[in-house]
Amino acid sequence: MTLTGNLLIGQQSVAGERQSVHGINPATNQTLEPAYAGASTEQVEQACALAWAAQDAYRETSLAARAEFLECIASHIEQLGDELIERAHAETGLPHARLQGERGRTCQQLRLFARTVRAGEWLDVRVDTAHPQRQPLPRSDLRQRQIALGPVAVFGASNFPLAFSVAGGDTASALAAGCPVIVKAHSAHPGTSELVGRAVARAIKDCALPEGVFSLLFDSGYQVGIALVSDWRIKAAGFTGSRTGGLALMQAAQARLEPIPVYAEMSSINPVLLFPAALHNRAQALAEGFVASLTLGAGQFCTNPGLLVAQKGPALDAFLRAVTELIPHSTAQTMLTPGIFSAYAAGVTALQDNPRARTVAAGQSGAGPNRCQAHVFITDAVDFLADHRLHAETFGAASLVVQCSNNEEIRQVCEHLEGQLTATLHVDDADLALARTLLPSLERKAGRLLVNGWPTGVEVCDAMVHGGPYPATSDARTTSVGTAAIQRFLRPVCYQDFPDKLLPTALQKTNPLHLHRLLDGQREDASHGE
Amino acid sequence: MTLTGNLLIGQQSVAGERQSVHGINPATNQTLEPAYAGASTEQVEQACALAWAAQDAYRETSLAARAEFLECIASHIEQLGDELIERAHAETGLPHARLQGERGRTCQQLRLFARTVRAGEWLDVRVDTAHPQRQPLPRSDLRQRQIALGPVAVFGASNFPLAFSVAGGDTASALAAGCPVIVKAHSAHPGTSELVGRAVARAIKDCALPEGVFSLLFDSGYQVGIALVSDWRIKAAGFTGSRTGGLALMQAAQARLEPIPVYAEMSSINPVLLFPAALHNRAQALAEGFVASLTLGAGQFCTNPGLLVAQKGPALDAFLRAVTELIPHSTAQTMLTPGIFSAYAAGVTALQDNPRARTVAAGQSGAGPNRCQAHVFITDAVDFLADHRLHAETFGAASLVVQCSNNEEIRQVCEHLEGQLTATLHVDDADLALARTLLPSLERKAGRLLVNGWPTGVEVCDAMVHGGPYPATSDARTTSVGTAAIQRFLRPVCYQDFPDKLLPTALQKTNPLHLHRLLDGQREDASHGE
Repeated sequence: MTLTGNLLIGQQSVAGERQSVHGINPATNQTLEPAYAGASTEQVEQACALAWAAQDAYRETSLAARAEFLECIASHIEQLGDELIERAHAETGLPHARLQGERGRTCQQLRLFARTVRAGEWLDVRVDTAHPQRQPLPRSDLRQRQIALGPVAVFGASNFPLAFSVAGGDTASALAAGCPVIVKAHSAHPGTSELVGRAVARAIKDCALPEGVFSLLFDSGYQVGIALVSDWRIKAAGFTGSRTGGLALMQAAQARLEPIPVYAEMSSINPVLLFPAALHNRAQALAEGFVASLTLGAGQFCTNPGLLVAQKGPALDAFLRAVTELIPHSTAQTMLTPGIFSAYAAGVTALQDNPRARTVAAGQSGAGPNRCQAHVFITDAVDFLADHRLHAETFGAASLVVQCSNNEEIRQVCEHLEGQLTATLHVDDADLALARTLLPSLERKAGRLLVNGWPTGVEVCDAMVHGGPYPATSDARTTSVGTAAIQRFLRPVCYQDFPDKLLPTALQKTNPLHLHRLLDGQREDASHGE
Repeated sequence: MTLTGNLLIGQQSVAGERQSVHGINPATNQTLEPAYAGASTEQVEQACALAWAAQDAYRETSLAARAEFLECIASHIEQLGDELIERAHAETGLPHARLQGERGRTCQQLRLFARTVRAGEWLDVRVDTAHPQRQPLPRSDLRQRQIALGPVAVFGASNFPLAFSVAGGDTASALAAGCPVIVKAHSAHPGTSELVGRAVARAIKDCALPEGVFSLLFDSGYQVGIALVSDWRIKAAGFTGSRTGGLALMQAAQARLEPIPVYAEMSSINPVLLFPAALHNRAQALAEGFVASLTLGAGQFCTNPGLLVAQKGPALDAFLRAVTELIPHSTAQTMLTPGIFSAYAAGVTALQDNPRARTVAAGQSGAGPNRCQAHVFITDAVDFLADHRLHAETFGAASLVVQCSNNEEIRQVCEHLEGQLTATLHVDDADLALARTLLPSLERKAGRLLVNGWPTGVEVCDAMVHGGPYPATSDARTTSVGTAAIQRFLRPVCYQDFPDKLLPTALQKTNPLHLHRLLDGQREDASHGE
C-alpha cells in the first residue's frame, strides 16, 4: 500500500494544510517519506462535526454489531502484513519481533474488548421496580444503564506504536464504550499511524457504520491536540506521554466552558523494594531480573523499574556487585526518537552531576545515533528524601538505588514517593511481616502491586490496573489497560417510569440481552426477566 | 442537649478561632444562639491530620463493621428526637412534617449504604488466574479490588439540612467507601449540623473507630472550604450548591500540586416536555401536577421543574389557562435563608424585566420576611434560543414556558439546553414516535429521564442517577444520590502474583467474603472459591 501522507476525516483521505512532519529512522537519523501535513483548524472541526453527527447512531449499535466492528479492525490490522512491521521498525527502531508481539497484543486487545462489549457487564444495569402501594409515597420504576460520553480525542504514544497508538487501548476502549474517536497521531510514527488508521476506516466501511466514528489527524506541534481537547463536541481525552504534555491537556480541558475528563498516563518511577531475606537468599537472581527489566526495550516503558529501595548491608552489596558485573554487558539499543534520546542523555547527566548520587554501573555506549547507554545510580535515603530531583523519571534504561539504614527510613521513602503505576516487593517468607506493614502505604501510592516479579510487562485482562495516583496518571480512579478501561468513557442515565416499548433494549423487563442485572438489590442470573 | 457552638475535631469538641456565624430563623429573621466560631487554619489542619492518620485502619475495616457503623449513625440521629426537628425547623423554616420525612430518608440512606457495604459489589473484584505454561510468556495471577480514595471533604447543602448535609448522601457514600470525612457545615443550619455531627461522633466512639474518621468544621465564609479542598491530605470533595460555589471548589482542586476530583452538584432547570397528545388529553391534570411540583418546598429543589417546552396551540392554551387559575392559590412559603430569598427575588425581577419573557401567573406574596411568591413566565423558542439569560436557574418556585412553532423548534430547544439533572416527557401513546426522536438528545443532556411524572422527588435506591452533564454537575460520570454514589470515592488496585496470605481478604482464593467475582472472564456465583 502506498502511503499518502493524508489525514483521514471520516472516510475521506485529504491532505493537511499546516506544517508537515516526517517520520525519522532513529537508527540512522534518516528522514522517511512521505510528508504528513498537519490538520488545519477547519479540518479539526470537520472531524469533530462528523464525530458529533455519528455519536447517537454509533452508541446505540447492538452489542453484537459493535463487537464485530472491533474484531473487524483487528482483522484489517493483521491484513496489513509485513508492511506494517517494516514501517514501524523504520520509524521507531524497535526490533521486528517486538513489533510482531505488539501487533498481536493490539489485535488481542481489540478482541478482548469485543468480548467485553458482548458480555454487556459494562452497561451496569440496575433496576428498582415500582411499589405503587408504598406509604407515604409510591415508588417509581427506576432503571439505570451506562451510555457513551460522546466523541473522544485519543493521543498516540511514541513508545508503543501499535498497542498505545491509533488502534491501541484508548481507542479500543472508547470505541467499545460507543464513543466516536478522533486520533491525533504521534509524530514519531506517522506512516505506521496512517496504515493502522486506514485499517480502522476500512472496518467502518465494512460494518456500514457512520463515517464519523473515526478520524485520524496529524500535526507537527501541539495546535491540533489543544484544538481537539478544546472543541465543545469532544467529551473526553486519552493520552499517554510526558507529564508536560498531560498537564497541558488537563489545563485545556479545565479551561473549557464545559470541563471534560482527560485520562493522561504520565510519569512513574515504579519503585521496587528488595526485602532483607529475599536479598540475602537470591541477590544474583534479583540482579539478573532487575537488569533484564531495566534494559528491556532500552527502558522505554512506563513501568520501567526506575527506583530500587533496600536496606544497607552485605546482601545489598552482593546485589550491587552483581549489577556492576551485568550492566557492562548490556548493549546500547536505539531509542525511539532523537528527542527521547536527548532527554534521556540530559536526565543521566543531571544524575551524574548531582552530588547526592553516585554511578554504580553503565552499559555499552554503542555506535550510531540515539543509542541508550544503561545507567544505575545509588543514593542514601536521607539524600533521596532531601532532593526532589532524585524522584524524577528518566525515561530510558536508568535506575536509582536508594540505600536505607533501617525500616523506618524505608517507610519514609515509601511515604514520600509520588503516585506510581506500579510498586514491586521482592520478598521471602521471612519478609512477609515487614511487607505487610508497608502495604497500606504502597496501596495509596500505586495502581498495581507486584510480588517477586518485575513491573515491565502489562497484561491486557480484566484485573489489570495500568493507572495510579497523580502524577502517574491524571485520574487514579481508572485504568488505561484492561477491560475496566471501558468505564472511562461511560456515564449513567436513569429512566423513570418508562413504558417498556420506550426503554433501551438493555433495560426492558424481559431482559432480552440476558444481562446480570442488579434487580431490587439482588444480583440476578443472566437468564432472568421480571 | 445543649448546643455548644463548637467544632468537632475528631472526638474533641473545641471552640473555633475565626469569625462566627449564627443560625437565622428565616420566618422571622431572628438570630439563633449559640454562635459558631469558624475553624482556624490550624484547626483545619488538625482535622486533616486526624483523617490522614485514620484512613488506613478505617478503609480496612470489615464489611460488617463498616455497615454497623453506618447503622449506628442512623440510630444516633433517631435518638436526637424532636430536638433535631425543632432546631432544623427554626433554622430553615421547613415544615415539621417535611423534616421528619427528611430524617427518615437520611437514616434509610445510611442503612441502604450499610446493605451496599455488606454486599461487597462495590469492591468489583476481578481475578485473572495464572497461566504458567502460556507461550511465549506465562501469565501472572492478577487480582483487582477497589480501595478508598482517602480523606474526603463534604460540604453541607442548605436545602436539605439532613439528607444532603452533615450525615447526608455524600458523607454516607464516602464513609461506605472507607474514606474518612471532614464536613464543612452549611452556615444556614449550624445547630442542626452540630446535633447530627455529635451523633456521628458518638457512633465512632460506640464502634471504637479511629477518631479521625469524622470531623465537623464551621466557617462564616469560604476560607475553611478552600483550605480543605487545597489540603494535600484531602483526596476528593462532595458539594451541592450554587454554580459559583462549585466552580470555586473545582478551581481550587485543579490548582493543587495533585489535582483531586470534586463532585459538585450545581444547577439545573429540569426541562419538562409536554407532548401534543398528552397536552390535548389532560391539560388540567398536567397543570395541577406542574403547579404542585413547582411550588413544593417553595421550589427549593435541585430538580424543580424550571422549564416547560410545548408546541403552541389550543392544548397549550388550555394548560396555561389552568396554570393561571391554580398559581394564585399557591401560598407564599418561607425560603431557607435571606440570601436565597433575595437571589430568588432578583431572578424573578430579571425575568420580569426581560422583554423576551412575559408573566403568565404569580402566586400569593405572603406576609413576613423571605416568602417565596411563585412565578410562571412564558417565551417563544426563538427568544429562548437567542437569549442565554433565559437558560439560567432561578432557585425557587419560578418556571419558564417555552412555546415552539413546530417539532424542529422543540428539537433545537433540546439541543441547546445546558446539562441537566433531569428531563421529563409527558406523553400519551400517540406521542411515542415523536418522543423517540428526542430521546438521544435528552440522554446526552440529563442524568435522569422521566415519563409522565415530575422531577421533584429523588428516590434513594440502586438505579437512581442524581447527576448529569456540566453544569448540572462537575462530573457526569457519577451520581450523588443512590448506592452508585459510593463509586465516586474508590479507585482500583491490582495485586500481581501475591501469595494468598498477603492478599486482602476480598481477593483470597477461597473467596471468603462470598463475592460475585469476575473470574477469568466469567461472572461467578457468590459461593465459589477457586
